[in-house]
Amino acid sequence: MNNTVAEQEDDNTVYVGSKPAMSYVLAVVTQFSEGQETVHIKARGKAISRAVDVAEMVQRKFVEDSEVEDITIDTDQIETDEGEELDVSSIQIDMAK
Amino acid sequence: MNNTVAEQEDDNTVYVGSKPAMSYVLAVVTQFSEGQETVHIKARGKAISRAVDVAEMVQRKFVEDSEVEDITIDTDQIETDEGEELDVSSIQIDMAK
Repeated sequence: MNNTVAEQEDDNTVYVGSKPAMSYVLAVVTQFSEGQETVHIKARGKAISRAVDVAEMVQRKFVEDSEVEDITIDTDQIETDEGEELDVSSIQIDMAK
Repeated sequence: MNNTVAEQEDDNTVYVGSKPAMSYVLAVVTQFSEGQETVHIKARGKAISRAVDVAEMVQRKFVEDSEVEDITIDTDQIETDEGEELDVSSIQIDMAK
């Protein structure tokens, strides 16, 4: 039972990276159309702007009964290829319909 | 009286653009040190990621009794130099101490 919940939580998270925003819009739309009631959009660093684009495009053009429920920002520590610790900002946008 | 309020509201808004994040961090820190209890950080497009960096740096390193109170995203219509309408995402991060 716990496992199922964990998988579902993982399932409805879309990580936004460096692809065009439409790739991630499609991923979010797919989650909603498969019955998810909430989708979490996550991004780090420069991809944060794209994550906001994705959320706006979803709620304005693709899933019009969806809306942004909560937005949180944080700082993650990542390790560079040279083994150095680096602070990078992150965002999580929780969408619901 | 209304004028005074309007000026104060304008005064405690920091618009994040393409300068290094530290320029805007300094602007936010200055607002708080001049007695503002809330500061609004606004950005559009690619500068949204930098606005998140600014808020994180302020609350973690520079004004440690400050915190993010609310984050909202929106879509603004801007006009290009060629006169075309363009949608651009925006963010407003409300910080308080």
